[in-house]
Amino acid sequence: MDRTTLRDALSPQCPIRNVLSRLGDKWSLLVLYTLEHAPSMRFGELLRAVPDISQKMLTVTLRTLEEDGFVTRSVYPEIPPRVEYALTERAQSLLPHINALIGWAADNMEAILDDRQRARAGK
Amino acid sequence: MDRTTLRDALSPQCPIRNVLSRLGDKWSLLVLYTLEHAPSMRFGELLRAVPDISQKMLTVTLRTLEEDGFVTRSVYPEIPPRVEYALTERAQSLLPHINALIGWAADNMEAILDDRQRARAGK
Repeated sequence: MDRTTLRDALSPQCPIRNVLSRLGDKWSLLVLYTLEHAPSMRFGELLRAVPDISQKMLTVTLRTLEEDGFVTRSVYPEIPPRVEYALTERAQSLLPHINALIGWAADNMEAILDDRQRARAGK
Repeated sequence: MDRTTLRDALSPQCPIRNVLSRLGDKWSLLVLYTLEHAPSMRFGELLRAVPDISQKMLTVTLRTLEEDGFVTRSVYPEIPPRVEYALTERAQSLLPHINALIGWAADNMEAILDDRQRARAGK
């Protein structure tokens, strides 16, 4: 990646930033992670599996993820109709990068918080 | 990384989230990227190299990065005193993960924005 791409990525109007910022909220990532190890899940299953999410927030989050092509919504014409959500290939290709970043933060957070505390105490 | 770590990482009080959120602002990443290809830089050099940053924001950003151990600040007792900033190993180990994520977003953003527009038009 060249430096122009990087600089562009950091501008507030940048489409890269726009794409990543929609994933940055707590619920989007939690829903993606909940779906990661299931072939598909129904709305009610997701509602029980994602801790503390409300029905309304789950609806909004799934719609956003569907709009951006991270989640598919399949409606099966049964009685009552069955609706199932699953990750797309796009989401599957993204998750390893986010996992790597969270893994790095998990490995380094103690040292960082220690350094921060020491820096502030030294002032 | 196990699922407990991931779940913890998504809680608002989580230290992982805390560590990553301090890097999420535009200026922190721009300063890290500007320092990435230089052994070290003086304040004035950084001020000219980071587009649109004010003297005050650069001061605040460098202090935050220094507190968290991403940047070292070395003062050389010359007249006038020379102060140089450089990346730490911690910052060097983080940047590949962020580059990978930005790279993924750059590769996928057009398709995502197209999908989003199509989804909204279809409503």
